[in-house]
Amino acid sequence: MSIETIKWVKGCARIIDQTKLPNKFEYIYCRDVKTMWQAIKRLSVRGAPAIGVAAAFGVLLGIQKFKGQDKAKFLKLFHETCDYLATSRPTAVNLFNMLNEMRAVVTRHPHADVALLKKLLFQEAMKIFKTDQEVCRRMGDHGANLIKNGMKCLTVCNAGALATVDYGTALGVFYSAKKKAKKFSVYSCETRPLLQGARLTCWELLRQKIDTTLICDNMAASLMGKGKVDIIFAGADRIASNGDTANKIGTYMLAVLAKHHGVPFYIVAPRSTFDLEIKSGKQIPIEERKSDEVTHFAGIPTAPKGVKVYNPAFDVTPAKLISGIVTEYGIIRPPYLKNISSRLGG
Amino acid sequence: MSIETIKWVKGCARIIDQTKLPNKFEYIYCRDVKTMWQAIKRLSVRGAPAIGVAAAFGVLLGIQKFKGQDKAKFLKLFHETCDYLATSRPTAVNLFNMLNEMRAVVTRHPHADVALLKKLLFQEAMKIFKTDQEVCRRMGDHGANLIKNGMKCLTVCNAGALATVDYGTALGVFYSAKKKAKKFSVYSCETRPLLQGARLTCWELLRQKIDTTLICDNMAASLMGKGKVDIIFAGADRIASNGDTANKIGTYMLAVLAKHHGVPFYIVAPRSTFDLEIKSGKQIPIEERKSDEVTHFAGIPTAPKGVKVYNPAFDVTPAKLISGIVTEYGIIRPPYLKNISSRLGG
Repeated sequence: MSIETIKWVKGCARIIDQTKLPNKFEYIYCRDVKTMWQAIKRLSVRGAPAIGVAAAFGVLLGIQKFKGQDKAKFLKLFHETCDYLATSRPTAVNLFNMLNEMRAVVTRHPHADVALLKKLLFQEAMKIFKTDQEVCRRMGDHGANLIKNGMKCLTVCNAGALATVDYGTALGVFYSAKKKAKKFSVYSCETRPLLQGARLTCWELLRQKIDTTLICDNMAASLMGKGKVDIIFAGADRIASNGDTANKIGTYMLAVLAKHHGVPFYIVAPRSTFDLEIKSGKQIPIEERKSDEVTHFAGIPTAPKGVKVYNPAFDVTPAKLISGIVTEYGIIRPPYLKNISSRLGG
Repeated sequence: MSIETIKWVKGCARIIDQTKLPNKFEYIYCRDVKTMWQAIKRLSVRGAPAIGVAAAFGVLLGIQKFKGQDKAKFLKLFHETCDYLATSRPTAVNLFNMLNEMRAVVTRHPHADVALLKKLLFQEAMKIFKTDQEVCRRMGDHGANLIKNGMKCLTVCNAGALATVDYGTALGVFYSAKKKAKKFSVYSCETRPLLQGARLTCWELLRQKIDTTLICDNMAASLMGKGKVDIIFAGADRIASNGDTANKIGTYMLAVLAKHHGVPFYIVAPRSTFDLEIKSGKQIPIEERKSDEVTHFAGIPTAPKGVKVYNPAFDVTPAKLISGIVTEYGIIRPPYLKNISSRLGG
C-alpha cells in the first residue's frame, strides 16, 4: 500500500507522474536534470518536501555524467545545476533549502577531489531523502494527538505521501491517527484549478481506507456553518520567522473561515519548510501560473476566449489565524516569532 | 447585443441552452411541459427569476393542447401541470411564487370558462415575463448607485441576463452602472462545480465590454486580503422574512470573507425571490445534486472511483452578514425583519 513518490533507482530519479492520477499510475524516469526541472515545473512532482528531494536528486543527475578530475569545471557544473533547478518554481522554500544543503557539502569539504565530492553529494541527497521519511512520521505522530475520536477533519490540496517521499505532512497526521486506531473522517477540498485535493488526496486517503468526502472549495464555509468541521490541517510551502505561512491557494480562505466559526486551524510542516531569513509573509514570492489552468479542462474551454485570469498558485495565511504549527520537533504555538526561533532557530 | 434567455415564440418556449455556453450558442424549443421540466432540472435554464418565468411558460405548455370545454378536466390538468413543474427544483422560490401567481388567476376567476382561463393564463405568463424585464432594470438602477468610479467589484455564479429574461440581478447592477458611464471592473468567481461564473458571467460581461477577470472560488480571500475587492454583488434563490438568503454554494463563503475584510456585501433580488412565509434561512430546502458534477468533467473522472461527495447547490447567508438587499423598490437595509416587512409585506 505504500506510495513511493520519488526514489533514486540505479542512477535515475523515479517519480510518480502526478498529473496523470487518479486515472493512470505512471512513473517518470528522470535521467537528466532538464527532465527533472520540467517535472517540477509542470507539477509531475509537487509538494514542498517532495520538491526539496527532487532538487537534491536533480543535482545528482546534473553532475553524474561529469567525467575527469578538473575540480573547477566540476564546481562550475555543480553550481550551474543548482542555479538552474532553483528557477523551476519560486514559492516552496524546501527547493532552495535543499539546494543550500547540497552546496554546503561542497563548502564543508574545500579540499575534496571530484570523486569524493560526487560521493559526498550522493550521500547528502540520500540523507535528505531519508530525513524526509523520518521527519514526516514524527510530525504525523505529534499531529495525531490533536485528533479525537469522532472528529471531522478538513484538508486542502495534497499534503500527503505524494507531496513528500512517502508519508505526508497534513495527511501524515491522518495516517498516524489511523495507526493509533482513532476513528475520524476527512473532508478533502478539491483545490482548484488543478484539483490536487480531488485527484491526489482522495486517492491516497481511499488507499488507506480513511473515510473521505470530496467537496468543492466553495463548500467548506457551508460545512463549517453547520458545525461539520472540527479541525483543519494544511501543509505549507514556506513559513516566515513570524509564522506567516504560504500554502496552496485557498488555504487563507479556510483560515479566515475557521476563525469565524471557531474551528482550530493547523499547519503541518517540517523544519525544511521554514524560511527564517524572512520576517513575514510579505516577503514570500507567490507564483502566478498560466491562465489556461483556469480557462480549460482537458483541452476543453470552460470560459469565453479572451477573458482575463488571475491565477496565483499560493496565498499567505497570517500567523494570527493559525492555531499551531505541527513540526517534527512538536507543535509550535503562538507567540510564533519567539517560539519558532527558540524551537528551530540557530 | 441583447440576450434573450427565455421567450415565448409561436406557442413554444424558446430558451438558450446554458449547459452549452460559452462554446456553443443553441436554443431549446420547449413544446411540451416535460421538455421544460427537464430543461429546468438539468440547468439548461437556471437562475431564480428565469426559472420563475420558465415555470409560467411551462404551465402554458401544459394546458395549450387541451381540447374541449370541460372545465373540471381542464383544472385537473392545470393543477397537475403546476404540481409537476414544482418538482423540478426545490430551492429557488420564484418557481413556486410564479406557479402561485398562475393559480391565483384561476382563483380570481371562478366563473371563467376554459377558453377565457386559457387567455387569462396566457396574459398572466406574459405579465410575469414583462415584469421581470422591468424589475431587473429598476434593481440595476438602484444598485448602480453603490458603484463608484474605480471600484473593483466581485460576483459569484451567474445573476445576469442568463438568470432572468434578459438583464440580470447582480449583473444588472453592472449594466446600469455602465449605462451611467461609471468606470469599474469585475472579478467573476468561476463557481464550482458547474462553472456558471466562468462559462456564463464572463461570457455576458465580455459581450457588454465590461473589464472582467476570472478567478477560482478559492482565490477570493486572497484578493480581499490584498485590498483588491471594494464591493460584492450576489443574486439570490430565496430570501426569508429575516433577510437570510439562499444563493449559489459559495455565497456564504464570500459573505464571511467580506465581513472579515470589511468589504460591503450586497444581495440583488426582486420581490419574487422573497419568501415571507418563512421566518429564517433554516426553513429553506437546499438542493443536493449528483456527485458526478464534482467527480467528473466532460465525462472524464477527476477523482478516484468510490469517493463520497457532498454537493449542495446552495448555501444560506445569515442576514447579519448582508450590507443591503437591492430590490426593485430600492435598497433594503438592516434591521431586515422590520424593513423587509414594511417595504415588501402585505
